[in-house]
Amino acid sequence: MNVLVILISVLLCVICVLLALVQHFYFINKLYKRPSIKFEVPVFEDLIPSDRYEHDFNYPVQTVEDHDDMILNDLNSVLSQPKKTDEMKVIPNTDKPVGTESEVYNTLQAAIAFKLSGKGHKAMKLFEHAAAIAPDNADVLNWYGEFLEQQHQDVVTADELYFKALTYSPDHKAALMNRQRTAPVVESLDYKLFKTIDARKEFLRQRMKLDSFDTVKKQAYYLHIYHTVGIEGNTMTVEQLRYLLETGQVVSGKSIIEHNEVLGLEKAMQYIKLLVRTDYIGIKEILGVHRRVMGHVDPISSGVFRDKKVFVGSHMPPPPEQIPDLMEGYVEWLNSEEAQSMHPVRYAALAHYKLVDIHPFVDGNGRTSRLIMNLILLKAGYPPIMVLKEQREKYYDALKTANMGDVRPFVRFIAQCTLQILDMYIYGTRFLSISGVTKEEDKQIMNYS
Amino acid sequence: MNVLVILISVLLCVICVLLALVQHFYFINKLYKRPSIKFEVPVFEDLIPSDRYEHDFNYPVQTVEDHDDMILNDLNSVLSQPKKTDEMKVIPNTDKPVGTESEVYNTLQAAIAFKLSGKGHKAMKLFEHAAAIAPDNADVLNWYGEFLEQQHQDVVTADELYFKALTYSPDHKAALMNRQRTAPVVESLDYKLFKTIDARKEFLRQRMKLDSFDTVKKQAYYLHIYHTVGIEGNTMTVEQLRYLLETGQVVSGKSIIEHNEVLGLEKAMQYIKLLVRTDYIGIKEILGVHRRVMGHVDPISSGVFRDKKVFVGSHMPPPPEQIPDLMEGYVEWLNSEEAQSMHPVRYAALAHYKLVDIHPFVDGNGRTSRLIMNLILLKAGYPPIMVLKEQREKYYDALKTANMGDVRPFVRFIAQCTLQILDMYIYGTRFLSISGVTKEEDKQIMNYS
Repeated sequence: MNVLVILISVLLCVICVLLALVQHFYFINKLYKRPSIKFEVPVFEDLIPSDRYEHDFNYPVQTVEDHDDMILNDLNSVLSQPKKTDEMKVIPNTDKPVGTESEVYNTLQAAIAFKLSGKGHKAMKLFEHAAAIAPDNADVLNWYGEFLEQQHQDVVTADELYFKALTYSPDHKAALMNRQRTAPVVESLDYKLFKTIDARKEFLRQRMKLDSFDTVKKQAYYLHIYHTVGIEGNTMTVEQLRYLLETGQVVSGKSIIEHNEVLGLEKAMQYIKLLVRTDYIGIKEILGVHRRVMGHVDPISSGVFRDKKVFVGSHMPPPPEQIPDLMEGYVEWLNSEEAQSMHPVRYAALAHYKLVDIHPFVDGNGRTSRLIMNLILLKAGYPPIMVLKEQREKYYDALKTANMGDVRPFVRFIAQCTLQILDMYIYGTRFLSISGVTKEEDKQIMNYS
Repeated sequence: MNVLVILISVLLCVICVLLALVQHFYFINKLYKRPSIKFEVPVFEDLIPSDRYEHDFNYPVQTVEDHDDMILNDLNSVLSQPKKTDEMKVIPNTDKPVGTESEVYNTLQAAIAFKLSGKGHKAMKLFEHAAAIAPDNADVLNWYGEFLEQQHQDVVTADELYFKALTYSPDHKAALMNRQRTAPVVESLDYKLFKTIDARKEFLRQRMKLDSFDTVKKQAYYLHIYHTVGIEGNTMTVEQLRYLLETGQVVSGKSIIEHNEVLGLEKAMQYIKLLVRTDYIGIKEILGVHRRVMGHVDPISSGVFRDKKVFVGSHMPPPPEQIPDLMEGYVEWLNSEEAQSMHPVRYAALAHYKLVDIHPFVDGNGRTSRLIMNLILLKAGYPPIMVLKEQREKYYDALKTANMGDVRPFVRFIAQCTLQILDMYIYGTRFLSISGVTKEEDKQIMNYS
């Protein structure tokens, strides 16, 4: 009887497989009908210096040169210079209002009074205070926005405040009217920012033939690792992590975890370099990035989705059982025509935000998201960008605002980071090879940086 | 039409699943009929000191005490003391004969002549030389065996030599006769060795109530990691790796790989502790051990079977495509009644040898095999044993002999390691708590060590 059972099941299985093939054929057909989005030929895909790529764990023991360190620090200081223009106001983002209603309205009234009597500085202080103690009060947000728009010509921040006011009170009349005016202005400003980025990228592309470009590329690589692990609390200096990666020897006084975070980021960057050549970024690839980022620190939970609840500040990302579905949706979006037809910087920023919003891992979500963002930028010919340690607060703030419904400040923040990196490359290649640059080019650079 | 296809396939799938369930039911029934082998209640399963188990990666920063170091070195020196009895002769195991035929026979004739004229020392030297230049010559092996048996009363080594002679010439008459005589003697010697081990284990069990036992246990833990990674070439001292594990801080001058090997071994030992409680050791568990052992060093290829050919010396383990099947067979054997009815020390030794013979991983096969061996020993109430750095040559030699068909020397080697560890515990608890030991007990200890 056993043999009969097996025979029947084999037969039925064959039928099932044949039917599945028929369905599969339909699906494949449907797939081919999708318009395939072609990325620009990658310009920056070889950003990882070639000498870093060869040795896997057989580090040659060598000493780090002082000259290189000088360039490194110099480039880092270029990045850290505070920008005078395009500086965004940090909008307080506390999660619970801390003031009573009467307190809030008294502060607001006083702020308006100061504004009307021309005491701008005092008004500013009070508006800030009101927004801090009542971050979800639409009136406060709207008045504060109007003040910034009229007195400081800060349309961008004003628009953010109106937007925020409308998320709390969608029918707030004044805010609605204000947004109608500011939204197109901000949109055109953002458009201009993307245009600037594209122009600067094109300019940098012409400089890639310079010898100095390789030097800058190598230094940018270490700076990239430094800032990416640094923003998560790693205390290694650029020189220390470079010593670790070049010699395979440890740096005394640092914890083993800090060492392994650095190793992991290097492995992940090597993997990203491979992924630049592939068309599809799927779950497997994202897990692969995470396995490399966190693998040396925690081999067991790296490369797998979390199975427990986590908190990010007071915010709770989705429960673990929803992650597989959410990630399916994320990957679908990532490879969709809709996403790929955006400006690459916007696409990259959203890819970052959406992934960190799902928060699929116990740890290493930020690093993985930033790497996926950079993968998209690399595919589109941009250099990988860094969120500097010094920009940490602004970065988390923009993410928080995105969480509350307004992703534009985060996209803008990433755009500014992109501009920053392009400037660093332009400055770096200029600094290292004055002789190789014509007067005409030099003038152009001066206009940029 | 699509809907119809789906409906039919769903229907057929349901039928398939039902039929599969019927088969599964048969299988389950068969499984229940198997006699379930019960391990002894583990005595040593809590060998990992409890304070090492709690913190995962949040190492408290603390200093290592000098007093502990003293005990540590003392215990290590006990282990390293050369044993006067039970010492095995290392039989040369070179893979290619290096002498010409006439050279070999001249040496052999001279050796026999010296033996007959009573010049034992000179004869020994020549027999050793002959065996070295002709390791696969049955005559040489047989004569050498007879010499050792008659002049040195070394029946065990003699038996190994006869066995080896017979693997090269299965019809060698003299060797066949010699083996007939020595085989039962050696068997009874091995039986006696197991009896000694069991008695000493029982004796140690009575001492486990002593306070000093915890101290010895803790020190043995660090020594275990030290020797297990040390045998593979790690140069960290016991004090250094203990500092790393207790503080999470790196030891300057050592490579990051050495650090990560130590971390991995600690993680693997914690995992073994969990596995002691489970009945079945499957592929998943073995991969889990390997993932922990090698994970910090190489997160990508840890916990997965190798996909390329490897060489161990001149020996080539099976090609990668055979590994899944071989491992299935290995796990079946590991959980079979046949294996589990052996003496635990023999079972553990064979589990080690068989796994390292398949060599399923690119790297970390030795460490993983030793941990699986220790898992079996722990389940049976034995302490985890160490193969000392100093025993490296003997260990590899015994493995090589096993590879050539004779596993007994390897089993014997593991049995001696077990005895060594039991002695270390007995010595350690005695050394640390003379006051807690009665005169009667002390006398017993003196007889043992």
